[in-house]
Amino acid sequence: MYPLVPGHEIAGIVKEVGSNVQRFKVGDPVGVGTYVNSCRDCEYCNDGVEVHCVKGTVFTFNGIDEDGTVTKGGYSSYIVVPERYCFRIPNNYPLASAAPLLCAGITVYTPMIRHNMNQPGKSLGVIGLGGLGHMAVKFGKAFGLCVTVFSTSISKKEEALNLLGADKFVVSSDQEQMKGLSKSLDFIVDTASGDHPFDPYMSLLKIAGVYVLVGFPSEVKFSPASLNLGMRTVSGSITGGTKVTQEMIEFCSAHKIYPQIEVIPIQYANEALERLIKRDVKYRFVIDIENTLK
Amino acid sequence: MYPLVPGHEIAGIVKEVGSNVQRFKVGDPVGVGTYVNSCRDCEYCNDGVEVHCVKGTVFTFNGIDEDGTVTKGGYSSYIVVPERYCFRIPNNYPLASAAPLLCAGITVYTPMIRHNMNQPGKSLGVIGLGGLGHMAVKFGKAFGLCVTVFSTSISKKEEALNLLGADKFVVSSDQEQMKGLSKSLDFIVDTASGDHPFDPYMSLLKIAGVYVLVGFPSEVKFSPASLNLGMRTVSGSITGGTKVTQEMIEFCSAHKIYPQIEVIPIQYANEALERLIKRDVKYRFVIDIENTLK
Repeated sequence: MYPLVPGHEIAGIVKEVGSNVQRFKVGDPVGVGTYVNSCRDCEYCNDGVEVHCVKGTVFTFNGIDEDGTVTKGGYSSYIVVPERYCFRIPNNYPLASAAPLLCAGITVYTPMIRHNMNQPGKSLGVIGLGGLGHMAVKFGKAFGLCVTVFSTSISKKEEALNLLGADKFVVSSDQEQMKGLSKSLDFIVDTASGDHPFDPYMSLLKIAGVYVLVGFPSEVKFSPASLNLGMRTVSGSITGGTKVTQEMIEFCSAHKIYPQIEVIPIQYANEALERLIKRDVKYRFVIDIENTLK
Repeated sequence: MYPLVPGHEIAGIVKEVGSNVQRFKVGDPVGVGTYVNSCRDCEYCNDGVEVHCVKGTVFTFNGIDEDGTVTKGGYSSYIVVPERYCFRIPNNYPLASAAPLLCAGITVYTPMIRHNMNQPGKSLGVIGLGGLGHMAVKFGKAFGLCVTVFSTSISKKEEALNLLGADKFVVSSDQEQMKGLSKSLDFIVDTASGDHPFDPYMSLLKIAGVYVLVGFPSEVKFSPASLNLGMRTVSGSITGGTKVTQEMIEFCSAHKIYPQIEVIPIQYANEALERLIKRDVKYRFVIDIENTLK
């Protein structure tokens, strides 16, 4: 709905607080993610997983808020958000690095925690090495996992291993390498949004292995044998509730986990978009609104 | 591999025991399921889930046993099986009724237990009302669940509700009925082997609902939105290990759960097969080998 203001990975400094605000004061660093309101009364809101609010969460942009207004996102100098949907960012955590945690970070962190991937010594495969995938690698290493990155392009190998700390890198078209990993992984986090086959990756899971999908290909399709014979599980996820989001931010701060970002001025947005389409980003653009949006 | 002797839902009386057998004596009622051997040394064998043996289980018929012989199944007067792969059947449990537990029963019981479906008050959908489906209904009711049966045919409604004790019956082509159940189920057990869409059923699951597949359609295909937006889970399963199989038999005995069977003479096998193809069976044929195979 035009005029549309995008942006749902937001980090900034509190400039004003309402009279009932308790958790924040002027000057605090805060983050805002993909939603800015919910009913606050259903079982999911009460459990702190407001993203699954029965009445529907209010998305950070292009959503209809409870007062009927259309929400506008983070590509703006200021945003007004109820404190429940704001997150504390530790003072020593770089603001620009915090932004991608609010969608890319929480989208992979939530299912990784939910499916108990934080067990040191277990093995994780990460499909796709973009904004979400590179965070899955970082979380995997922080959890003590042996991390294998699957990518369509060999060009990401060096960085995956040396910058992000992955243990192995596999070009997914290399059938020999793929075969060598048969039934070897406890978990897979699939961040690829492009269409891709599922059976070759599912065959890499051990018995009872868990495959988490966070991307949105046009369809999910596999053989029942890939699922049933190894009593494997395929599970999906989107972002996360306020409770786990705050926990993730604290975890990133404690473990010095920072997304790899390229900070750009707002004037560069269109060029950045073209580079995104060409997959030419490592691994998240962050727009410096404060210094460039006048 | 001909000559082939099928049959992997077997119940009978012990006629002889080897000198090292400890758990059984002559005269004991016993059952044998879909496998009769495994390596007994891998992590899965050691956990009592021999069906996932790393070296491959030896199937009850048409499998290659450790001595190189081809296994032959239950359509025979006698069968020799290592005691580990035999199950105690309580003396008061009818032998003929015990047989279908060894594949149909354990195939649905295993994932139902694994995914914590034994929580009274939760809701279960059962897709398909054949040998496996009717057992899922019985287990569901014994677990205290509210059970809804989904079938392509209204003809099974009366029995589903009054004989099997299901709470609701839905003809899956009835879009109004389906819509009315949107996001209402905690669990689904899909026993249908024919091809069918998955999205309409997945949409009936609550947030974080679990869909268990035990059938083998030609493919599993659904929209990532059906999975991700409700952080739902799709999981597969085949039969079960020796530990859970014995537990299931005790559970059935304690809760007086008996498969619905039609006992037939071996001479009726070909006609029974034709009726199976026409889905004309409620819900399992059991062959009376002792009295009819001469």
